[in-house]
Amino acid sequence: MDLLSIKDPSFLKKMSNEELEVLSQDIRKFLIEKLSETGGHIGPNLGVVELTIALHKCFDSPKDKILWDVGHQSYVHKILTGRASQFDTLRQYKGLCGFPKMIESEHDVWETGHSSTSLSAAMGMAIARDLKKEKSFVIPVIGDGALTGGMALEALNHIGHEKKNMIVVLNDNEMSIAPNVGALHNVLGRLRTAGKYQWAKDELELLLKKIPAVGGKIASTAERIKDSLKYLLVSGVFFEELGFTYLGPIDGHDYEALFENLAYAKKTEGPVLLHVITKKGKGYEPAENDKVGTWHGTGAYKIETGDFIKPVDAPPAWSKLVSETVRRIAREDERVVAITPAMPVGSKLEGFASEFPDRMYDVGIAEQHAATVAAGLATQKMKPFLAIYSTFLQRAYDQVVHDICRQNLNVFFGIDRAGLVGADGETHQGVFDIAFLRHIPNLVLMMPKDENEGQHMVNTAIKYDDGPIAMRFPRGNGLGVPMDKELKEIPIGTWEVLKEGTDGVILTFGTTIPMALKATEILEKQGISIKVVNARFIKPLDEKMLLELFELNIPILTLEEAVLQGGFGSSVLEFAADQGYHHLQIDRMGIPDKFIEHGSVNELLEEIGLTTEDVVKKLQSLARKKQKRA
Amino acid sequence: MDLLSIKDPSFLKKMSNEELEVLSQDIRKFLIEKLSETGGHIGPNLGVVELTIALHKCFDSPKDKILWDVGHQSYVHKILTGRASQFDTLRQYKGLCGFPKMIESEHDVWETGHSSTSLSAAMGMAIARDLKKEKSFVIPVIGDGALTGGMALEALNHIGHEKKNMIVVLNDNEMSIAPNVGALHNVLGRLRTAGKYQWAKDELELLLKKIPAVGGKIASTAERIKDSLKYLLVSGVFFEELGFTYLGPIDGHDYEALFENLAYAKKTEGPVLLHVITKKGKGYEPAENDKVGTWHGTGAYKIETGDFIKPVDAPPAWSKLVSETVRRIAREDERVVAITPAMPVGSKLEGFASEFPDRMYDVGIAEQHAATVAAGLATQKMKPFLAIYSTFLQRAYDQVVHDICRQNLNVFFGIDRAGLVGADGETHQGVFDIAFLRHIPNLVLMMPKDENEGQHMVNTAIKYDDGPIAMRFPRGNGLGVPMDKELKEIPIGTWEVLKEGTDGVILTFGTTIPMALKATEILEKQGISIKVVNARFIKPLDEKMLLELFELNIPILTLEEAVLQGGFGSSVLEFAADQGYHHLQIDRMGIPDKFIEHGSVNELLEEIGLTTEDVVKKLQSLARKKQKRA
Repeated sequence: MDLLSIKDPSFLKKMSNEELEVLSQDIRKFLIEKLSETGGHIGPNLGVVELTIALHKCFDSPKDKILWDVGHQSYVHKILTGRASQFDTLRQYKGLCGFPKMIESEHDVWETGHSSTSLSAAMGMAIARDLKKEKSFVIPVIGDGALTGGMALEALNHIGHEKKNMIVVLNDNEMSIAPNVGALHNVLGRLRTAGKYQWAKDELELLLKKIPAVGGKIASTAERIKDSLKYLLVSGVFFEELGFTYLGPIDGHDYEALFENLAYAKKTEGPVLLHVITKKGKGYEPAENDKVGTWHGTGAYKIETGDFIKPVDAPPAWSKLVSETVRRIAREDERVVAITPAMPVGSKLEGFASEFPDRMYDVGIAEQHAATVAAGLATQKMKPFLAIYSTFLQRAYDQVVHDICRQNLNVFFGIDRAGLVGADGETHQGVFDIAFLRHIPNLVLMMPKDENEGQHMVNTAIKYDDGPIAMRFPRGNGLGVPMDKELKEIPIGTWEVLKEGTDGVILTFGTTIPMALKATEILEKQGISIKVVNARFIKPLDEKMLLELFELNIPILTLEEAVLQGGFGSSVLEFAADQGYHHLQIDRMGIPDKFIEHGSVNELLEEIGLTTEDVVKKLQSLARKKQKRA
Repeated sequence: MDLLSIKDPSFLKKMSNEELEVLSQDIRKFLIEKLSETGGHIGPNLGVVELTIALHKCFDSPKDKILWDVGHQSYVHKILTGRASQFDTLRQYKGLCGFPKMIESEHDVWETGHSSTSLSAAMGMAIARDLKKEKSFVIPVIGDGALTGGMALEALNHIGHEKKNMIVVLNDNEMSIAPNVGALHNVLGRLRTAGKYQWAKDELELLLKKIPAVGGKIASTAERIKDSLKYLLVSGVFFEELGFTYLGPIDGHDYEALFENLAYAKKTEGPVLLHVITKKGKGYEPAENDKVGTWHGTGAYKIETGDFIKPVDAPPAWSKLVSETVRRIAREDERVVAITPAMPVGSKLEGFASEFPDRMYDVGIAEQHAATVAAGLATQKMKPFLAIYSTFLQRAYDQVVHDICRQNLNVFFGIDRAGLVGADGETHQGVFDIAFLRHIPNLVLMMPKDENEGQHMVNTAIKYDDGPIAMRFPRGNGLGVPMDKELKEIPIGTWEVLKEGTDGVILTFGTTIPMALKATEILEKQGISIKVVNARFIKPLDEKMLLELFELNIPILTLEEAVLQGGFGSSVLEFAADQGYHHLQIDRMGIPDKFIEHGSVNELLEEIGLTTEDVVKKLQSLARKKQKRA
């Protein structure tokens, strides 16, 4: 059928299973074609075609609330809710968002991006529904990977306790972003191989009645045997113990099984967990055969061969540089242990893992645990390297404060994807880390200007034994600078003058350094001479250099690809005020006080006024003011 | 015996069970007496006397690592490791810390305060031990309440998967701080009532062999029945499914049972969960009979009667004012729903809960889930009131950013215990919240000057429908000001001039307002006239008033009981810089960049230079500078 003509999912109600099969194939074809041009999360979406169709056929969205955990598997949902025509702009500036988005559709009832939030949100919605005495269903759809996140487990616990009506769909595709880790996954594995048990309950009850009561000790437990067996035999003991009615596992690509079980779930009182087995990448061979997560999210590709045209999400050289430098140092420093919360591929830790399998721990989607495992290692004089994306470190803020920095433990944070990340958008921008880390006592925070300085900073961080130290680095590739052979240590809290100048000074670090240098080149031709400082230590500041700069009494511009409020620029203002330099002209450029949506990094920088031209203009005006004052 | 003579726990090795019983009674007597004078966490410690003694007898601390989750149950451990003589100074300035503290003893291998961290830290220690090929035991001791925290569940999952040797002691006292909540508690409840099953395994195996294989369907599952039954019958299925060897439940006051099971645990390969049942307050009747948590942590009390002498931890009037005002408004506003992560008593929500049992949710120790349940409620046009301590809100930072503020949802945060909290010390000081909240877009953040303004702010927050709004308020009691009968709304982002003056201005809010007023009174007598502004909105700033103040060109002092880095004062510096006011003298007073230990709030304020005298001195110097400039 013509997917572009779909306005809302109501048309599904009248469709036969045969027609739905045709629709599924149409949607798969559409996704494979569209994403071959735009890129996107192809694997997860091909896996949930039938499940999404079945949910929209069995429920009445938006009255019934379907919540997509993480949300990158919401493309089929977007097609069924009238957004097929926007797929040419997927994940592009001002285009269709890669995640659920309330402003796009009333069917997007919960926005996601980070993992494991859907169950808690669903609980809030269920409480609201019952207080308002409304009749509707709340259906969070959560993957087996997301289920290892602490807040999802907190939610399961609470939902089971409260016994509110809710249908949790566990979308078990055996692989979240990387192959799953953790005991919970083993439990699911056992369930997965067990086949269809839910209909066997009655027969089992019959069997149980026949169990002999043997002797005193055992007899007293007969009742418990019965209760327990009932659950265990149908495999869902884990969830049943928590208070859920467990249904499944069922084939998530089989409409009949889906309809039968969803109908049963709708009639069931209290929380239901429907365990659905799906195959990531279903219907597109290259994605189906993916074992490590390459086809989780991709750039454009050739449909016939599955070759990536321009591997947008492929080798992010920064991640590789950092992980490979850690690996190099780990050869001589036995204290080094790497920890990742479910991002071994994204963090490019495969090489480290193959060389040091005993010294690499993928703890699953569990950022809090990851941080505190690192803390535990550090108490034993090991040197943990916590590889974590800036946006996901938000999940471990308290662990950074309470477990790591408060105890002043030698943890090395490799903060990946710091700054704007582009297509993933507002849920994933790594722009808050400076503001949420800078005020924590004991922490050293730095960012390198290029990959050569980056390797020296990694070395510095591993050699540093006075407390926690973090290096933030951007998504994407380095600058292609020559690399020193020998690793050096950079003295903590020292900045570097990159270019001399007399009319003003830019203090900046990381990705905005090339911008600053380019701007000053342009200005030089206009007779304006600007000093450029690589403020590679965000904390502690290079106070000695700052005092010297203050004494020059020339305008200062701070420039950062991070939020302005409480950011690096603020720390310069603070230091100037504390030192009694109240007359200085200090201006700040950075990310304003709003959430930044998806788009290419350059488009976003343009939107927020953080380009070379903006820097040039700002410095021109500063220099003019200085001349006026002089 | 003379507890003061204990140097380390080695003396326990030679003691008979009878001698240990005597020792237990000596320790109980000591604790009841000492804490009757100093106050402290009496209930949890009386509950773990035998358990702590048994652990130190069976293991070799500090080679073997005992980790106390939360840590307020570590007093017996402190006595056994040579710190009995310091109990007169418990939780006092420069005195014995109420939590484990590495600088106090080599036996304190992990510092705690916040809940649910011990399992992750133990995992880090176990990994380190195995990498170093050392032989030692790692023994985290965690309560049933702490087990509902997401990071503990993340850790259980990972530990079960990795199968490292570790002995997790589940100290199940049926009550954490408030009666436990959640399905996990129900599971534990079932185990708790089941008695001793662990020794019955062999007999059960025999029984299982007798289960008939009935018909095709069932026969195929016979093997599974056997495997499963073995676990289920011994009650620990939940933990066994996760990969632990489950032992228990046993009586945690029975030395014989403790020794037998600990010996068995030591010989067991892989992770063990030893389920120990203890009674909080054991051996002291008033504490034993406590049903709601009054005896969890207390001030001084009369031993004979259990009457509190000065109820230090009793009615914190601020919590009560806020919760009762929410309750009052909830009578007319059906949208209001209260949520607490395990702090119904601390947050004084008992009244609300009894009047609106359907509109009050205690979700257990689960701050992340609590925040996102609130978000879910807000999507359905409800008005959630999230009652949470400042220090525990740290656990939900990502949920505040990603789920609440990013979606601009109408959640009302009641941030309790904001500022210095005193005796609980550095793990509990509520001093980071401004710095970790201020940079989040869409959030309104405010703090009232007194309880009358407080009630109007609560009303303002509930009426506010443009996004998330937070009111922080301190631990302890209000000022005793008269209360308006009618509730008013305070215009968002408006400050209030409390006192006029011409030589300078103080911008401050909340607890530091009385200090500021007192300081300006003293200065007035010296002929220095200072304006005092109640900067009750920390975000957004009252930009109109600020611009007027800037135009006065007099010195500005910001004063806050919160960290200086990225705090309120920084936001004033930022605004001045952004508006081009580069010549202003703006100085900041607040909490310096270090963790603040335990002590009375006044002692701590003195230590960090945040007293009336310090404010007077600062303003004198500012006024002098101004005169010099004029």
